[in-house]
Amino acid sequence: MQAPTYFWEDIDPGFEIETAHHKATTEEIIEFAQEFDPQPFHLDAEAAKDSLLGGLCASGWHICSLSMRLVYDALISKCAAQGSPGIEEVRWRKPLFVEDTVRVKVSVLEKRSSASKPGIGLIRWQWEMLNQNDETISLLTCWIMMSKRPQQMDATSEETA
Amino acid sequence: MQAPTYFWEDIDPGFEIETAHHKATTEEIIEFAQEFDPQPFHLDAEAAKDSLLGGLCASGWHICSLSMRLVYDALISKCAAQGSPGIEEVRWRKPLFVEDTVRVKVSVLEKRSSASKPGIGLIRWQWEMLNQNDETISLLTCWIMMSKRPQQMDATSEETA
Repeated sequence: MQAPTYFWEDIDPGFEIETAHHKATTEEIIEFAQEFDPQPFHLDAEAAKDSLLGGLCASGWHICSLSMRLVYDALISKCAAQGSPGIEEVRWRKPLFVEDTVRVKVSVLEKRSSASKPGIGLIRWQWEMLNQNDETISLLTCWIMMSKRPQQMDATSEETA
Repeated sequence: MQAPTYFWEDIDPGFEIETAHHKATTEEIIEFAQEFDPQPFHLDAEAAKDSLLGGLCASGWHICSLSMRLVYDALISKCAAQGSPGIEEVRWRKPLFVEDTVRVKVSVLEKRSSASKPGIGLIRWQWEMLNQNDETISLLTCWIMMSKRPQQMDATSEETA
């Protein structure tokens, strides 16, 4: 396994990154919905027109899972990530429609050491999914656990090992 | 489309239901992880042993998506559901390991009319995923939007139309 680029010490509040862009297809929206969320507005374009959402669009859980993959590829894959205790909040602001091209803007909000797990720190961040018109699709706030650097340097140093 | 059994008027705080049981396979855990969350502890049993999670286990987003499907089959499929504005909180308490058999306990906490959308009400509920040992895997709190009954009866009546 490749050594991580980022340990807990290396990511501070104010850190921002944008992921790659992803164009959502009808096929992937329907495939996810068939497995996990088969409500008519995620499966059937005609039924979706008559719904509050106004057109065929991705399940909210698909939006979250797709955000995860985009943030994984852009950042988490390079981090000493150790899972998450949970999600603080998700707001679904606008539907993710077929053919929308989306990306996620990641903003680090806060960090702290784990009180119970030695060698682990937590980072609180916001993931904002935006569409091709820079409209907010979803706003998600959660914590991630990350390993601290194995040979801990002076805790006040900002140097990378 | 079948007429819904439950409109917003029909589900009150205190309403509880348990979903069917589902046994999680290695294949489905890895398949979800490959698409949305390819962290080593969701893909590789050996790597997972050395992680904080302690063994191959489902992505937190898979836990949420699976909860959605179980609650859909048990209840949402019978409701006049109109989507959700978001998630209030998710706590991932214990990993969902391969071969675990899980179910979701749904508890309605609160309800209110929509201030902006005529004919729509909101319901706040908790979804608790439990494993075969009755241990809590996840606790999820969210709101769902539901249509009110088309020919509104006296608002104080608890009768079903």
